[in-house]
Amino acid sequence: MVPAIATSTGPVLVIGSGLLGASVGLGLRHLGLDVYVRDSSPTTEAVAQDIGAGRSVRALQAAGEQLPEPELVVVAAPPDVVVELTVQALAEHPRAVVLDIASVKAPILDGVRAAGADLTRYVGTHPMAGREKSGPVAARGELFTSMPWVVCPGPEAGARAISVAKNLAVDLGATLTMMEPQEHDETVALISHVPQVMSSLLASRLQDTPLHHLSLAGQGLRDTTRIAGSDPGLWVQILSANAQPVVRSLHEVRKDLDRLIATLEHPEADGARLDIAQLMAEGNAGQARIPGKHGGAPKAFSTFTVAVDDTPGTIARLLTEIGEIGVNLEDMRLEHSPGQPVGLVTVSVEPNRYADLVDELQARGWKVVQ
Amino acid sequence: MVPAIATSTGPVLVIGSGLLGASVGLGLRHLGLDVYVRDSSPTTEAVAQDIGAGRSVRALQAAGEQLPEPELVVVAAPPDVVVELTVQALAEHPRAVVLDIASVKAPILDGVRAAGADLTRYVGTHPMAGREKSGPVAARGELFTSMPWVVCPGPEAGARAISVAKNLAVDLGATLTMMEPQEHDETVALISHVPQVMSSLLASRLQDTPLHHLSLAGQGLRDTTRIAGSDPGLWVQILSANAQPVVRSLHEVRKDLDRLIATLEHPEADGARLDIAQLMAEGNAGQARIPGKHGGAPKAFSTFTVAVDDTPGTIARLLTEIGEIGVNLEDMRLEHSPGQPVGLVTVSVEPNRYADLVDELQARGWKVVQ
Repeated sequence: MVPAIATSTGPVLVIGSGLLGASVGLGLRHLGLDVYVRDSSPTTEAVAQDIGAGRSVRALQAAGEQLPEPELVVVAAPPDVVVELTVQALAEHPRAVVLDIASVKAPILDGVRAAGADLTRYVGTHPMAGREKSGPVAARGELFTSMPWVVCPGPEAGARAISVAKNLAVDLGATLTMMEPQEHDETVALISHVPQVMSSLLASRLQDTPLHHLSLAGQGLRDTTRIAGSDPGLWVQILSANAQPVVRSLHEVRKDLDRLIATLEHPEADGARLDIAQLMAEGNAGQARIPGKHGGAPKAFSTFTVAVDDTPGTIARLLTEIGEIGVNLEDMRLEHSPGQPVGLVTVSVEPNRYADLVDELQARGWKVVQ
Repeated sequence: MVPAIATSTGPVLVIGSGLLGASVGLGLRHLGLDVYVRDSSPTTEAVAQDIGAGRSVRALQAAGEQLPEPELVVVAAPPDVVVELTVQALAEHPRAVVLDIASVKAPILDGVRAAGADLTRYVGTHPMAGREKSGPVAARGELFTSMPWVVCPGPEAGARAISVAKNLAVDLGATLTMMEPQEHDETVALISHVPQVMSSLLASRLQDTPLHHLSLAGQGLRDTTRIAGSDPGLWVQILSANAQPVVRSLHEVRKDLDRLIATLEHPEADGARLDIAQLMAEGNAGQARIPGKHGGAPKAFSTFTVAVDDTPGTIARLLTEIGEIGVNLEDMRLEHSPGQPVGLVTVSVEPNRYADLVDELQARGWKVVQ
């Protein structure tokens, strides 16, 4: 397949060569494009070149060569310098389409507009990919594979710029979604920034809990606090940049929290139980709306758990046999088993295959525990 | 292995034969004990007998037989009737040790004490096991395998009662932990009840979110809201019964939430960024204290993701090869891939095996994406 972007774009300059910038560079070089990388840190820029993300602009200039005029500039710098670098790129490269990939969109568009830059050549985008490590060493050309990439053209954006932005997302293997910048920011506030805040608020309660109490923690606590392990430096920038939509949601959370606290202070009062039930049911309703695998409509799968020796060989054999039985796995998870070397593999399958599969696995000697 | 409980206990009466009661019955029958089940619902009691959880007391009496005097009574009824049924069991069976398995302990001990019952023969316990389904049909004798079972004797409990309670937990395959009732309730408030509340509060924000926005949801939202799908009826009872410790924690959450809202309302103010960073770092600190697999000390694993065809066969082959390479899997997860039939398998391993494993998998042609 000839990538669409390769047919329409000459040299590409990637500004900022951390995890995301270097991954964009790697992905575009794989597609055969001529990529150049620039970073405020000379070391980061050199590492990005070393891993094959593109030619270092500093190295180029040290060799007495000129940066070829880019047709596409991707600004992949930290959120707090994106406006400045985007405005600068639009001015320095008057033929280039300039895209940014920061996780907040409306404030950046507003900033670029306020600077009087040429908005016909600018499109904000947000690839929803990442990993726990940062820096160019962690970069992978396949980082965007199957992840959403939201393209958020402002009203001034020209057709060529929009088309280049869409092609970039598709060519790097991402799933393209179009949104207004404001709509994007409200969406990520709700599906990403507020969950991050709630997870951090919850996890911070555990700072002084004795470890032998925490050893009783189940998968529920692990799941609800996993993202609380994220990088504070990055989240300061994201939360500051998207403060308004996040605060609006947090006010709603506080209303519900206040109501619950008032109720639990008098749990025997008339209506208290109904009030708690209502709050829990509202949580049920919200949770049920999150789409399942493959981005389809919300769907309920049947779930069971198999106790296995905790070795990759045994889990592999289990999955092989599920395949032999002819049932497709919708989700699976290896659960932690406090204190014992037994693995609990939780498997989700289509409800209409559930009973047969459990019977067949038990017949084959597997320990289906729940 | 001769189970310790079988050597010390005659007939066992299980009162309440839902998921947990029937699972206790099944597990004890597996150990060769003589088990009788009683439930307020004749149907539930009959189903429990049908699945082999024990002899139905109603069926016994209809056949003109007498219930043999039990040496152990396990009260496995819903939290709101546990005190009444425990007091009644202590009075009706003056030789029996009576245990309950409800998820809150101090209010039950207080209730049984207030009724003037014989506390030397009573011990409250809490097996931390469950599943998404309820009722005796969902019961499994292995439900408690590798799960914590907290035994919380009150100050009046006698040695025989404590010993029977410990043996029950161990014989059913659980991991025994001893705690004071009050300490137990504070612990579960923090590691189970407050996480449930936070997950429900977060998920209820999604009630009116358009589905095409929710289709951008990543694993973070899925993980933080998973337990919001829990049964409201059960949680009303748990939260009402453990209201005080839960409310204490929720007040602390509200303090942090208020602070964050105030900060985000003026994100450009002096000190705002530091304040957000602090809150995030506190979340980091709490999250890092949750013990990892096998209940050991907190431990960081190295994580990478492999893109695979989304079939059980391929995932099985991946795990087989990881086993061949000789690396032990610490955790794994199959991630959802919105819109594309590609599975992303995230694998956690010991940090010192990480680099070798990734190199070897890539050499074997696996697509390590991040």
